Amino acid sequence: MARDDTRQVLEQAAHFFEKVWAPLDGPGDEEGCHFDNGAVRTPSGYRAGYAALCEAGWNRVSAPEESGGAGLPEVIGRAVGEFSTSACNALGLYAALTAEANATLRRTGEPWMLEHIVPAMVAGRWAGTMCLTEPHCGTDLRLMKTRAVSQPDGSWRLSGTKIFISGGDQDLTENVIHLVLAKVPGEDGRISDDLSTIRLFLVPKRVVDPDSGMLGGSNGVVVAGIEHKMGLKGSATCTLSFEDALAYPLRESSQPGGANRKSSAGMSGMFDMMNSARLGTGMQALSSASRAYGHAVNYARERLAGRAAKVEDRTGGAADPIVVHPDVRRLLLKQVSFIEAARALALHVTALLGEPDEALRAKRSAIGSLLTPVVKAFFSDRSFESANDAMQLMGGHGYIRDNGVEQLVRDSRIFQLYEGANGVQGLDLVLRKLPAGGGQAIRDFLELVEQTAEEALAYKDMRVHGETLRRSTDAIRSCVGWFADPSRDAYDAGGSSHDFLTMVGIVACGWMWARMGIAAVSKLEQAGDATFLERKMALCRYWFEREVPLVFALSNRVKTGAACLMDLPAELF
Amino acid sequence: MARDDTRQVLEQAAHFFEKVWAPLDGPGDEEGCHFDNGAVRTPSGYRAGYAALCEAGWNRVSAPEESGGAGLPEVIGRAVGEFSTSACNALGLYAALTAEANATLRRTGEPWMLEHIVPAMVAGRWAGTMCLTEPHCGTDLRLMKTRAVSQPDGSWRLSGTKIFISGGDQDLTENVIHLVLAKVPGEDGRISDDLSTIRLFLVPKRVVDPDSGMLGGSNGVVVAGIEHKMGLKGSATCTLSFEDALAYPLRESSQPGGANRKSSAGMSGMFDMMNSARLGTGMQALSSASRAYGHAVNYARERLAGRAAKVEDRTGGAADPIVVHPDVRRLLLKQVSFIEAARALALHVTALLGEPDEALRAKRSAIGSLLTPVVKAFFSDRSFESANDAMQLMGGHGYIRDNGVEQLVRDSRIFQLYEGANGVQGLDLVLRKLPAGGGQAIRDFLELVEQTAEEALAYKDMRVHGETLRRSTDAIRSCVGWFADPSRDAYDAGGSSHDFLTMVGIVACGWMWARMGIAAVSKLEQAGDATFLERKMALCRYWFEREVPLVFALSNRVKTGAACLMDLPAELF
Repeated sequence: MARDDTRQVLEQAAHFFEKVWAPLDGPGDEEGCHFDNGAVRTPSGYRAGYAALCEAGWNRVSAPEESGGAGLPEVIGRAVGEFSTSACNALGLYAALTAEANATLRRTGEPWMLEHIVPAMVAGRWAGTMCLTEPHCGTDLRLMKTRAVSQPDGSWRLSGTKIFISGGDQDLTENVIHLVLAKVPGEDGRISDDLSTIRLFLVPKRVVDPDSGMLGGSNGVVVAGIEHKMGLKGSATCTLSFEDALAYPLRESSQPGGANRKSSAGMSGMFDMMNSARLGTGMQALSSASRAYGHAVNYARERLAGRAAKVEDRTGGAADPIVVHPDVRRLLLKQVSFIEAARALALHVTALLGEPDEALRAKRSAIGSLLTPVVKAFFSDRSFESANDAMQLMGGHGYIRDNGVEQLVRDSRIFQLYEGANGVQGLDLVLRKLPAGGGQAIRDFLELVEQTAEEALAYKDMRVHGETLRRSTDAIRSCVGWFADPSRDAYDAGGSSHDFLTMVGIVACGWMWARMGIAAVSKLEQAGDATFLERKMALCRYWFEREVPLVFALSNRVKTGAACLMDLPAELF
Repeated sequence: MARDDTRQVLEQAAHFFEKVWAPLDGPGDEEGCHFDNGAVRTPSGYRAGYAALCEAGWNRVSAPEESGGAGLPEVIGRAVGEFSTSACNALGLYAALTAEANATLRRTGEPWMLEHIVPAMVAGRWAGTMCLTEPHCGTDLRLMKTRAVSQPDGSWRLSGTKIFISGGDQDLTENVIHLVLAKVPGEDGRISDDLSTIRLFLVPKRVVDPDSGMLGGSNGVVVAGIEHKMGLKGSATCTLSFEDALAYPLRESSQPGGANRKSSAGMSGMFDMMNSARLGTGMQALSSASRAYGHAVNYARERLAGRAAKVEDRTGGAADPIVVHPDVRRLLLKQVSFIEAARALALHVTALLGEPDEALRAKRSAIGSLLTPVVKAFFSDRSFESANDAMQLMGGHGYIRDNGVEQLVRDSRIFQLYEGANGVQGLDLVLRKLPAGGGQAIRDFLELVEQTAEEALAYKDMRVHGETLRRSTDAIRSCVGWFADPSRDAYDAGGSSHDFLTMVGIVACGWMWARMGIAAVSKLEQAGDATFLERKMALCRYWFEREVPLVFALSNRVKTGAACLMDLPAELF
């Protein structure tokens, strides 16, 4: 896609979300969702906002043309997605989960679903959800109780309770397509804890006629209630009770990059959806951080307090804007240098996962899969910190509801928790993604980073950063070796997974900064937009001077091992 | 005070706050404060809870006996304070600020105030506040607009608007004693930005007759509104409009340890109050973290998911409690090892500041003053992280209002912001406390830590920790030297103050862990309560293996200097 076309699409999208969606964000948080008579009502204005989204087509930017989408590259879809969740994350989530469910359905659905259901979801008339968690079980699917039983007529009936279902019900669309994990009982009619008995089912809220696609009556999906949460209050988080609901088994997913998982083949579709949703969660996190930064930087320029430590930097007024103070700048640079590297990384990972060249696909998508838990967990950890840094800079004013940032702090706290809590992402990285394919993906990733580091050495202003980046890959490599050591204690991986994931996140962002820095210096030499490029260089420098060095401390901590965590008997905590 | 007496007091206090106050915490957050017809109404149950507090005397544990207090040591008062804010921080704040204002009044008040006002506050019939912030000015008092003008009859009238006044109004007490900073205009009737024109005034909500102490009519203190905040919703944060209110100037404070401040002598009382409130804020932060930990540890023991990585640690059920997983233990140990060291440190600082021995007082209180911003800022940073770690461990369940932790996260966010945002604490440490007295306080502090490190070397199980502690003081000393270098850029101190404060916080907690560890090993050798002592040793080990090593990375970062923060022009942020 041509650069100018891309710019035009993004500018139009930004305009739409700023004008139509952003005004819904604060009021939607105040009002929250309502639950009356077994149905969810979203906050005032959401219906109109959602309808406007679908009418303008911003919900289907990268859906394929044959389903009614615009068929633009996934990277553009993700970039537009950032605008939507930055403007109003709670409302954006209904569309994002619909798009994820729809993508899964395109890979796993029967022909009649592709004909009748997929287009309705792409158009935005119907929505989608992902139903996994149960009251007593989240990550550990062995404990799942929801069951699907095949009937003598060949149909399936599904029963069980699912919780924390985002968009489990709403008043935005005429139907909801639930993708539900359930166990198939054995011949004795009992369910087991064997993961291979789990399959993914499509369960419509209202029955759909497979032949005509016509909507029928309701389908035994009872909305039992909604959660009262810390934030993201415009997004209905539902408890759904499936009561002998008509269900349709989905096929295996053919998505690349899923080969290394140790799980039931029947869950492949759900895993693909989860992985895509994890990337999406990283983008949501980033979008919240970015909006919070906007508040912070305005405040820092406008609020007057104290005088610059150097006389020559003083404005001459009674006090200077607080952006003159180094600790305020520290908070700003910490936010923005993360945000811009993270944005680049998320889009780069999207491109890696969608590599069109057959010859490169396996290698690139494996690197993308390796980095997916990092995007989810590192971004959500840092975004929450970032929104809190925005609040910190505003002092007591940041704590007041009217000033906008406290909602972003509350909203963004969920990103560390949903789509697999960040602890699970760390384990995914260390226990699955590192050893997959004999460790090829991490080696390939480090090689790419080192190529960039090497390139950086050629530019005077990038040399030191290139050396730092090079040393940081050594630190990661030494940890990879430590994890792979066959003499490792069985608890060591889990005890160090969080720190290791953070290291990879910092280095991956450093990789992006080095690439942006190289682009900036090489363009500065050819006289590009000097202001823009100098700004990029300053942010790059901050990341390498203040963030990347933490990698070396974390590397030492990774290698302390888990004994200090495990020796205390559980009852003494 | 004898150990058994102390234990008895603390047990009774714990019982009271757990039974009477803790049940008010959640409902008070849901309901919040009301503002009707110019007056604040606190949440249901607060009036009865406050009355019960005052009746039982838990509001005046360490107030002097001559004012009606119990006269117990300040350390006991602080420890009881932790229970109160752990049980219901919003309600506790009304009592805490009253106690702080009262302590200030005892040092700065006229005889009639000591006779009539102090005892009413000690008894809890009247409350107190601290009025400093104005809409356009927080830290930078030069910008203050509130003015107090002496009248021909010798009285003073005070006018201006103050915001963010905790407990600025309520329905708990029959009167409120406001301590208000105001400027005294020059002969031309105009106020200047000269700090020496600022004085501290007592402004009662209802007029008090100086001769009889009888309550009169209202005194031109108009409650203009309350804030809608992220948390601490049961605490009324008021905007107060002083309209020619009758005001009484207070005298200079004679509090020790205040000698090094560069401020108006007229503000000494306010500074003393702020310093005490900063220590109190650190304790509040700690108390929230502690309560959140209670939720987290219960959840970790009860929630079943996955199986222990080692077969021998499995329970044999369908799944094990999540406390068997190393990353869950990491989150627990990170919380509890901070909490227990922080509690020890806060009480130790309290004791240092209240040193009764004349010969030791100057030295010890200077160390206490040095550590006060650290207790405020490091504790509040870490407590917020700690409450978030508790939430993280609970996954999506932590984000749901009913489960208790999300309120603690919202409530505890304020501690980083009020009583001087943490950035201001960092500057206080680096710009005031470090150079004060030629740097004697930091040298004395490091010497105490090194004595402990030396002692630790004598015990086999403490030797490595003692060495780590010793190296950590070197890291601090090198940063102190870096700050003191006369060739420093004017921005360097501000650019590194946050990291330096964090270093001192980690090392000070390490000091406490070393002392607790030494006590534990020496008692283990004499066969003490082995379980309790082994637990202490495990927490001590965690702190030295996983937290203290960060000091070395921070030390490097401190010394990177501020160039990477200051080079970017303000308009490019």
